[in-house]
Amino acid sequence: MSAGRQDDADGLLSALQRLLGEGGVLTERSDLERYETGWRYGRGRAWAVVRPSTPEQVAEVVRLAHEHGRPTHPIGANTGLVGASNPDASGEQLVVSFERLNRTIEIDAVDRTVLCDAGVLLSQLNEALAPHGLFFPIDLGADPQIGGMVATNTGGSRLCRYGDVRHNLLGLEVVLPDGTRVDRLSALHKDNTDLDFKQLFVGTSGVYGFVTRARLKVAALPEQRVAALAGVTNGEAGLRLLQHLERSAGEFLSAFEAISGPALDAVLEHGADVTDPFVGASRRPEYALLVEFSTTLGVERLDLRELLEASLLAWCEADTTAEDDVVDVVFDGDGESFWHIRHQISESLAHDASQHGGKVLGFDVSVPRARMAEFTSRARELLAARWPFVRLCDFGHWADGGTHLNVVWREAEAGAPAAELVPAIQEAVYDLCVRDFAGSYSAEHGVGPHNRSFQERYELPAVRAARLALARHFGR
Amino acid sequence: MSAGRQDDADGLLSALQRLLGEGGVLTERSDLERYETGWRYGRGRAWAVVRPSTPEQVAEVVRLAHEHGRPTHPIGANTGLVGASNPDASGEQLVVSFERLNRTIEIDAVDRTVLCDAGVLLSQLNEALAPHGLFFPIDLGADPQIGGMVATNTGGSRLCRYGDVRHNLLGLEVVLPDGTRVDRLSALHKDNTDLDFKQLFVGTSGVYGFVTRARLKVAALPEQRVAALAGVTNGEAGLRLLQHLERSAGEFLSAFEAISGPALDAVLEHGADVTDPFVGASRRPEYALLVEFSTTLGVERLDLRELLEASLLAWCEADTTAEDDVVDVVFDGDGESFWHIRHQISESLAHDASQHGGKVLGFDVSVPRARMAEFTSRARELLAARWPFVRLCDFGHWADGGTHLNVVWREAEAGAPAAELVPAIQEAVYDLCVRDFAGSYSAEHGVGPHNRSFQERYELPAVRAARLALARHFGR
Repeated sequence: MSAGRQDDADGLLSALQRLLGEGGVLTERSDLERYETGWRYGRGRAWAVVRPSTPEQVAEVVRLAHEHGRPTHPIGANTGLVGASNPDASGEQLVVSFERLNRTIEIDAVDRTVLCDAGVLLSQLNEALAPHGLFFPIDLGADPQIGGMVATNTGGSRLCRYGDVRHNLLGLEVVLPDGTRVDRLSALHKDNTDLDFKQLFVGTSGVYGFVTRARLKVAALPEQRVAALAGVTNGEAGLRLLQHLERSAGEFLSAFEAISGPALDAVLEHGADVTDPFVGASRRPEYALLVEFSTTLGVERLDLRELLEASLLAWCEADTTAEDDVVDVVFDGDGESFWHIRHQISESLAHDASQHGGKVLGFDVSVPRARMAEFTSRARELLAARWPFVRLCDFGHWADGGTHLNVVWREAEAGAPAAELVPAIQEAVYDLCVRDFAGSYSAEHGVGPHNRSFQERYELPAVRAARLALARHFGR
Repeated sequence: MSAGRQDDADGLLSALQRLLGEGGVLTERSDLERYETGWRYGRGRAWAVVRPSTPEQVAEVVRLAHEHGRPTHPIGANTGLVGASNPDASGEQLVVSFERLNRTIEIDAVDRTVLCDAGVLLSQLNEALAPHGLFFPIDLGADPQIGGMVATNTGGSRLCRYGDVRHNLLGLEVVLPDGTRVDRLSALHKDNTDLDFKQLFVGTSGVYGFVTRARLKVAALPEQRVAALAGVTNGEAGLRLLQHLERSAGEFLSAFEAISGPALDAVLEHGADVTDPFVGASRRPEYALLVEFSTTLGVERLDLRELLEASLLAWCEADTTAEDDVVDVVFDGDGESFWHIRHQISESLAHDASQHGGKVLGFDVSVPRARMAEFTSRARELLAARWPFVRLCDFGHWADGGTHLNVVWREAEAGAPAAELVPAIQEAVYDLCVRDFAGSYSAEHGVGPHNRSFQERYELPAVRAARLALARHFGR
């Protein structure tokens, strides 16, 4: 590094320190580490980390970095699963952390909207909304920041009822790569004035600009929430049940999750405080379907548990093969014990892997939802034919065609090292999903170093051209 | 025009005729007229009109025009209200009509999606969906084509329940300005793979490319639909009622429309088959609020009429000033007579104007919905102060903050000719809306020659820059 470059770097650091004060700029290696390591994948090296606490500071940080030719990289709560949160390996990137940009949570109960800083955590937002009888209805296992949720357009388990972040986003404030702050913090539900600028920043990982604040539409907290777990012997029956529920009680359905038999077994073996919901049933289910209903009505108006039971019973009576297809249907109040099982799958698979010297290869994919059962069957067959030592432990959000295929194996039984198997299995599964089923290689986790090569493999030329044209326009 | 240019034009015409055959290319002035005249505003002059009937033909038409340097302009069902459907005055544009591109309507009932050609009419689509118990839930007074609905992101009266076109759009096929056909006809509800390409074509009037096919999410037809008309003495009470309904029965609310007293009076005077819903009430309402509930549940499960009555009663009891604020609440089965009033407003105002030598100046605006009552009051005050001879006959979709302000006057009573008054009133009302209330000058009608100057007035520089960068990228 030339002396000139060093001077420049020192000059930038001084300017950042003047701007952000004590603790606002981190340069010690021991302080940087937690910003350099991904939640599941990825590891990079930061030049420094800045922690602005206002949108104005973010703009000034970005402007200074731009002026000094210093690349920047945003980091939220670092809960992403594609390695996109962390800086690259160059050691040159200035990491912009949003953890201090979390002061503003302005709730307008009549408007049913909230204005919040990008660094506010989902859990913080929901805590602030609860006294107003409101919540932000994106349901996730992790606790990300709102800005990161916008940048990756998170979906989650209740998308079938409430939509993804894009559907609940009214306005944004962003800082462009040259430091320009653009306030489009609209609270409008209808605004058809040509290009919807905010869409450019949803799901695009901060490449076109950093989200500093967002105006979100929020929802009324339900008065009742009930759930059932329906064990079925085949996925097609699950899709027929889904169709039935949407037709006869569509506005109540708030989740329709499928847990495969192997995923359920892993939780029963390794999970904490779990009992087998299908104990005593004569057969084991291929899928356990978590069906959740919720409503803003009180029980005196509508007994939701009774409605859910009646809806499931009506399907069993109407569907010609339901008698063969349904193993059992179990109920449990608000369904907490079912969600407990659902949320322990990843952890149980990881536990199993660590106990047995195993490997878990995760896929976050989607297909047209009518083809979900066919797709998972085909994936299972494909894996069995080429890699007979693997198990497929899948679970997913079948109402919106999203599923997490976990391909699990024990290294001792595998015919090859993981480094060799992983790329081959990824290519086979993604090709099946994207090419044979018109699906997506990243349903809800976004794009990062972990799956960037598949963006290159599947992206349409016209989409890439538009994406890169926008990147050039925004100076990236 | 030089001979070379004429040869070129003839060459293009011949090529188009070979491609599209008999009736596929129109050049006679008498044939062109209906493509040149806007529904409400605008009039242009076409060079010729083409009527392709497949996406491939659209692509070839656009490619040929591009090759010959001939500008193109798309037209759907010509129901738009901002003059955007028609060619400009140059007489040079090749108008591409989608009226023959209406063969494909592929319904997947399990997927709850439909693939349809851009030229399919909303009414045709809903007719095809009805036997499957499904409908496309964008409720409009007009009967546009699906491609036009995408290009203007139509909203309508049931947006509060179902969202706008953008919320119900899964995939698109477009033809770019150079004739490249891009198939992103995804049926995926979750697909977070960077830039969401289709968003560029929603609401942007075909500038970046012509929509040829769309994959739409459709909804289950309700089993029950009920409505009430609540007369209130002030708009603020209406907003409190809205909040109450969303909290206590949010999933049932499918419309919340406000009809101002003057708009109601116009319908009572000029409408067909209308009786005064508030006859006998001791006061006249400032606003009549059309509240609609709907559900997929049968009446044996939930008596929706009873729920609506109970919800309105509960509000009257809970709200401290409701006794003073509520004139009357009337019911009418599925609410057809209320919608009949609602849909006759524009026509009644036009009738009144033609009878009395009057003028109706329409505004399609939105504000943050919590400020809707304040905004309409302020607009009324502003108009009364500067133009005391006008009446404000507003009606709108208050649940989503959209309203149609109709400013009505009799030319004989006006102090100035309409040509002078219109720009002054537009500027005053739009400035109030956009600058003082953070609203939009085009809530759901889009942007066209009728309101283009206001796009220039209010658009943020960063938004304009991105919009123009995309236009350059797509070769426009």
